[in-house]
Amino acid sequence: MTAEIIVIGDEIILGLQVDTNSAYISQRLAENGIAVKRITKVGDDIDRVVSALALAGVSSELVVTCGGLGPTHDDMTRDAVARFLDSELRLNESALGEIQENYTKAGRTMSETNRVQAMIPDGSDYLSNRVGTAPGLKFTKGQATFFCFQGVPKEMEWMTKTYLLPFVQTLHNETVVQYRILRTTGIPESTLYDKIKDVVSKFRKDIDIAFLPLLTRGVDIRLTTTGRTRQVSDTLLSDAFQHFADRIQQVFPNAVYGYDQETLEQVVARLFFHTKKTIATAESCTGGMLAHRLTNISGSSDYFMQGKVAYSNESKIKDLGVDEKLIQEFGAVSEEVAKAMALGVRESAHTDIGISTTGIAGPTGATPGKPIGLCYIGFSTADGTRASKIQLLPFAIDRITFKERIAQVALDEIRRFLLSLK
Amino acid sequence: MTAEIIVIGDEIILGLQVDTNSAYISQRLAENGIAVKRITKVGDDIDRVVSALALAGVSSELVVTCGGLGPTHDDMTRDAVARFLDSELRLNESALGEIQENYTKAGRTMSETNRVQAMIPDGSDYLSNRVGTAPGLKFTKGQATFFCFQGVPKEMEWMTKTYLLPFVQTLHNETVVQYRILRTTGIPESTLYDKIKDVVSKFRKDIDIAFLPLLTRGVDIRLTTTGRTRQVSDTLLSDAFQHFADRIQQVFPNAVYGYDQETLEQVVARLFFHTKKTIATAESCTGGMLAHRLTNISGSSDYFMQGKVAYSNESKIKDLGVDEKLIQEFGAVSEEVAKAMALGVRESAHTDIGISTTGIAGPTGATPGKPIGLCYIGFSTADGTRASKIQLLPFAIDRITFKERIAQVALDEIRRFLLSLK
Repeated sequence: MTAEIIVIGDEIILGLQVDTNSAYISQRLAENGIAVKRITKVGDDIDRVVSALALAGVSSELVVTCGGLGPTHDDMTRDAVARFLDSELRLNESALGEIQENYTKAGRTMSETNRVQAMIPDGSDYLSNRVGTAPGLKFTKGQATFFCFQGVPKEMEWMTKTYLLPFVQTLHNETVVQYRILRTTGIPESTLYDKIKDVVSKFRKDIDIAFLPLLTRGVDIRLTTTGRTRQVSDTLLSDAFQHFADRIQQVFPNAVYGYDQETLEQVVARLFFHTKKTIATAESCTGGMLAHRLTNISGSSDYFMQGKVAYSNESKIKDLGVDEKLIQEFGAVSEEVAKAMALGVRESAHTDIGISTTGIAGPTGATPGKPIGLCYIGFSTADGTRASKIQLLPFAIDRITFKERIAQVALDEIRRFLLSLK
Repeated sequence: MTAEIIVIGDEIILGLQVDTNSAYISQRLAENGIAVKRITKVGDDIDRVVSALALAGVSSELVVTCGGLGPTHDDMTRDAVARFLDSELRLNESALGEIQENYTKAGRTMSETNRVQAMIPDGSDYLSNRVGTAPGLKFTKGQATFFCFQGVPKEMEWMTKTYLLPFVQTLHNETVVQYRILRTTGIPESTLYDKIKDVVSKFRKDIDIAFLPLLTRGVDIRLTTTGRTRQVSDTLLSDAFQHFADRIQQVFPNAVYGYDQETLEQVVARLFFHTKKTIATAESCTGGMLAHRLTNISGSSDYFMQGKVAYSNESKIKDLGVDEKLIQEFGAVSEEVAKAMALGVRESAHTDIGISTTGIAGPTGATPGKPIGLCYIGFSTADGTRASKIQLLPFAIDRITFKERIAQVALDEIRRFLLSLK
């Protein structure tokens, strides 16, 4: 079975909003053995939506659309489906009742504007929505089954789980699409590739192998099997996965931080839960990003005791106990200050680890000898306090990217330290 | 002139990575009067890439591709272009020299793997890359001009500015695509629409009007003109923009926080620079996200004095001076504790404003009477200390969305306070 996705909305075509919906649906379909072959994005224009539906309907057996079901005049999907099915829009009393009920439950009154969301094209079924107002649509034409979902990610996700996945799970696919991912950080893509090329050669005839560089996170290596039964796929994939994992561990010890969709903060959280250590952060250049990532995990209050964002020199001195003379002598962005910040926050929070960041995120703030992209990460434990220097290439970063990359390096330092305790 | 974008990469089709490149290119082209009509995404499969090039080449005069120019075996764009042009790949010594030079400049040695990036299809020109290693490609076939860019966003952006935009600017479009955006926060989409429907009706025959709900930010209203000369477009758009702005100001005072691509933190920063006020943050449930957003602005050290992330009760007591009895009596998530946190951080940092967040991000942590999604925001100035209660609907949030939404509400409280001083 082949599937495709149509994303509808001027905001997508004009680049005003990034589409994350198609990625979500692709992933869920892939997990269920269905490979998406094409994703098409069109604007809020009824002619273009109708022709995208027609093209998809002749190429694929499953078509999912997102967007255009809202209450305002620029929402075209209902009209486009009616035209595509050569039918009429009709007020569906039962859909209207559900929309009204959703409003009542949320303690609000339905606005007249929302009535249009109960207009359902003849020849299609409406799909009840329990997490928003607009119902979705389902219909078939020719070989293809169509699902029309909302553009709001939470609603689209709920509709996918509630209607799309149960539908595809009844199809009994004989073959599956499966993948595993090895997530690395700290090694450039081509360096990594060079050192494991022979493993790539060994497996590439049976397995699709992709190197995915993610600027702020590292390089993911994705191994995918398609068109095989689950049993054959399982064997192939676990064999290849083991070979890749072993080789990388041999040439770049601990460069693999996690597998599949695991984030670095999830891995770090697991290590904290296991080792029962605690941490406090003192951030200058990352401005709270490191604390934000550490606290993305439910239960992080078990290990994350305190975070300080010390942007000003005054705050570094008063709040972290950094000696003013160190700042005068070496500057706020220096190995010495990074160490004093890490030590200061560890002592004040009574934690096992204190970690600090101080650097020049840009676009302003560079001085002779201290270019944009320079950062020191301080790391303090009962065994001592050290700092590492990082110089990101200034042409490849903006302020937010800088914060994200440094937070990733800092999280990785925490991971490597906790690993060394196991 | 019509344009389209082809995004190449299994990671996109399989949903492992969200594509932000097509949004970037669409925006830049729209600013230059060119509307993108379709965005197609295909996997790393040479047949599908070639057929996407062929389809685009007959529908549009300008085609931009992203991705598939990397050094590893899964990078297919060079081969696909050669097949599409019915030509051969050939090692280009001058491109190779540039790649080597890029490595030397970065203090690294070029790996053998990177040589493939200097293989250029006959009939195409290579485009030098000063911010990465792989050159881009440019060629024409039939009516269409093709640009092939890298998938790494920083490189794609640089190539767009360096090659694509100068090219389209030579085309002397008579008509333009222009848009303006009013960014609102705190008002539901249908409520907003209901109250300004007559303004929508007045302008919708001449202007495309879209309501874009962004879960964590608010609702954007985008006004777009197409197919008109710059002069006509300017007049139409500024008239409509003024009508919308006035009406919204009348029915929801100060609900518009900014215009076009402006973020709430940029608006807040401008107000801080203007009023010369200072702020300190005490975050529990937002875990550093609020400090992160406040420090996304270059120069934020002028107003952002100190941030504390007090996740544990101990840290709220020791570091923020919250009375332990308040936590015992009312719980950490309460109006009283939110106020004490805001006051505590303002006094310790000697700032004009202290702001705090304490809430239940979930998925765990709910107690009777305190459901997931509950949050208090404390706000303290020399004039007094108050707290506001927010209850997000639990079905519509996950942990990170919760943090983002609460940070947005907190930033908006800061904005409204600073506005009241002007």
